[in-house]
Amino acid sequence: MQLYSFWRSLATFRVRIALNLKGIVPDEVIDIDLMKGRQREDAFHAVNPQMLIPALVEDDGTILFQSLAIIEYLDELKPNPPLLPGDPRGRARVRALAQIVACDAHPLLVPRVREYLEHQYRLDEPQRMAWCRHWIAQALAALEAHLGHNETGHYCHGEAVTLADICLVSHVAGAKFFAVDLAPFPQVARIADACLALDAFARAHPLRQPGAPATV
Amino acid sequence: MQLYSFWRSLATFRVRIALNLKGIVPDEVIDIDLMKGRQREDAFHAVNPQMLIPALVEDDGTILFQSLAIIEYLDELKPNPPLLPGDPRGRARVRALAQIVACDAHPLLVPRVREYLEHQYRLDEPQRMAWCRHWIAQALAALEAHLGHNETGHYCHGEAVTLADICLVSHVAGAKFFAVDLAPFPQVARIADACLALDAFARAHPLRQPGAPATV
Repeated sequence: MQLYSFWRSLATFRVRIALNLKGIVPDEVIDIDLMKGRQREDAFHAVNPQMLIPALVEDDGTILFQSLAIIEYLDELKPNPPLLPGDPRGRARVRALAQIVACDAHPLLVPRVREYLEHQYRLDEPQRMAWCRHWIAQALAALEAHLGHNETGHYCHGEAVTLADICLVSHVAGAKFFAVDLAPFPQVARIADACLALDAFARAHPLRQPGAPATV
Repeated sequence: MQLYSFWRSLATFRVRIALNLKGIVPDEVIDIDLMKGRQREDAFHAVNPQMLIPALVEDDGTILFQSLAIIEYLDELKPNPPLLPGDPRGRARVRALAQIVACDAHPLLVPRVREYLEHQYRLDEPQRMAWCRHWIAQALAALEAHLGHNETGHYCHGEAVTLADICLVSHVAGAKFFAVDLAPFPQVARIADACLALDAFARAHPLRQPGAPATV
């Protein structure tokens, strides 16, 4: 199994957490430097024509893409520990919390969007940072509101780690990159801390990957 | 079961298709007029604090949100006809195709983003339309590239309708709203036509809902 990765990619961070939780170690981790536009080169285009990471390549050549789809695949491949609750309503809640991050927020922050705002509309760096902070805070508020639900426990859904926690932690890492204050979102901050106390989360962190700076 | 809906919402269009395919008829469809900002009023805030539609309320009061999570819930509740393939790799491919639309493209087009571009950065109507068309075309290109795969059949994945087709059709409806030319994306256009020939898709279409104009 090969994982196409980049230290700063929050979507790849999610897949690394899932691999760690499942105890799956890819044979190879291939770095695609998004800062240098390596995702747009022919070699990677053949892997994922959408030119986005993560991508996971199985030994038979099957290519998997999109972080949530990859994580559910890993969960089906190796069901223990489960990353989704056992009941349909619980699964729906966990998937929906994950989608607040992976659908409503993260796609607005990625390099291609920031570059488009810069080159097409001449938004300067502070304006682009304000854009990112706005959408990060919107999703933090949405998560915080939904975490007021009585099914929230030590983690987003009860006492076991799920896909929702994986996405929440990736979003909090993004909030820290962009210096968004977590104080108004105490449940989110509490759960992120609880997750990052686990080795599977901690060693998947962007700042612990090859090529990462010491701090952001 | 109650569905919170609005004719123009592409995410709600997806849920309507799934309900039709499953033969589930909600007891009530409650209109939330996004053009008038009704999603931000207290009555709906209590249903979904994220203030987004669709939301589906079960008879016991359980509230489901996020279109992909709702559709997978409906698929688990009533497994026939299935909206995901039977094998993990097929499911991963279908979910990933769906996420090209629901994660990478649609969140960039929604009213709150267009309003933010208008009010925060003073982008005028043609600039905002160009923004929407750009991201719609990017996702059409990504879908088209991935549909070159040998598992593509009459529909996105083989000969049965899946979650990927539901998302593809919602994206094509968005492309038509924003007058994006489908000619460079023949596989996408072919599959959208094949789906819209089915009654479950056709009668879920935005332009066939109460309050919709005759054309866009």
